[in-house]
Amino acid sequence: MKRHFDDELADLKQRILRMGALVEAQIRQALSALVDRDDLVANQVIQNDRQVNTMDVEIDEICLELLALHQPAARDLRFVTMAMKITTELERMSDLAENICECAIELHAEPQLKPYIDIPLMAERAIKMVGEALNAFVREDSVLARQVLNEDDYVDDLNEQIFRDLLSFMMENPHTISGAIRLLFVSKAIERIADHATNVAELVVYMVEGKIIRHMISP
Amino acid sequence: MKRHFDDELADLKQRILRMGALVEAQIRQALSALVDRDDLVANQVIQNDRQVNTMDVEIDEICLELLALHQPAARDLRFVTMAMKITTELERMSDLAENICECAIELHAEPQLKPYIDIPLMAERAIKMVGEALNAFVREDSVLARQVLNEDDYVDDLNEQIFRDLLSFMMENPHTISGAIRLLFVSKAIERIADHATNVAELVVYMVEGKIIRHMISP
Repeated sequence: MKRHFDDELADLKQRILRMGALVEAQIRQALSALVDRDDLVANQVIQNDRQVNTMDVEIDEICLELLALHQPAARDLRFVTMAMKITTELERMSDLAENICECAIELHAEPQLKPYIDIPLMAERAIKMVGEALNAFVREDSVLARQVLNEDDYVDDLNEQIFRDLLSFMMENPHTISGAIRLLFVSKAIERIADHATNVAELVVYMVEGKIIRHMISP
Repeated sequence: MKRHFDDELADLKQRILRMGALVEAQIRQALSALVDRDDLVANQVIQNDRQVNTMDVEIDEICLELLALHQPAARDLRFVTMAMKITTELERMSDLAENICECAIELHAEPQLKPYIDIPLMAERAIKMVGEALNAFVREDSVLARQVLNEDDYVDDLNEQIFRDLLSFMMENPHTISGAIRLLFVSKAIERIADHATNVAELVVYMVEGKIIRHMISP
């Protein structure tokens, strides 16, 4: 029985990793769609969100089955319940990738305001955080998870800077307002992706250490 | 043993309701802070967010203890695991109330752009959705939960309308841009509160019917 349960836990972990890999790809492609002004890619990301949703539901069902059949305790119990929370975070990231693509498609209808520099930079950091949070999860590494928490400030600062830049841009050229606001939404969506990565990292710390740190470390 | 477990479930439900009531009050006060231009109330809401966070952590710990000690099955298992997800949704709503207050404080530093009409209207609807979702949870009423899902479109439409209004406002008077963008963020935050209420309603349907409807009904 125990062996069997371990196999199922390993399978669950693999499924979460596959979902995480797809979500990472979604975010990466959303940025490509924006930067390359590629509606085809944008629509692809919007389509793929369904696959992420299906994975979310499947993983929840597997977790409930594991809880009902094996009644895990201590760390295993934390693993399964945190898995249910982690997939919610991943699913929300995919929603945000979809939102970025919707903004991208609207932006492509107008000439590009200016070259995108800070937004891709910020997105790179957010994607790195997502990858690290998932690595921390698979390796059950709370040290790495805590590193992710520290990176969130950098993304927040970049978002603030982008906000100020776009604001002065709009004030100088009021005809850019509509486009600049879309970019503001994109920037905010990336910041929220980083927040979700932070949430995953906090859940990993709890899973490994049994210590709830959310609402404590993050400002 | 069974009687004891039922008591603990009833206690858990009470705690979630208390947390829900506090979150509802947070959202309501955030709107008062905005409309009445009252920084004192805004700072109060920001302070109270800590209390919501504490409740979130406490409820999670109680749920894990219930799972470990009583190993519930079927509907009870769904109740406890969905409780863990519902409190996350509530906690995020409180974060958004806090965000609204931060915007409100910034807005109070400048003269008011225009009377607030649509934003309080939208907030009322969002708060109603939160209250109904919590009622559906406490009554284990999936019919009421499904009603909540239908109301989200109205809030989304209002948000779209506010967006368009603010956009034309900014284009006509570029010196209003900074304030109008804060209002845009407030409107978006309310829309997200309604989204979280929708999430709670979907979790209630699952809790009652054992049927995962998220990613299916909502657009």
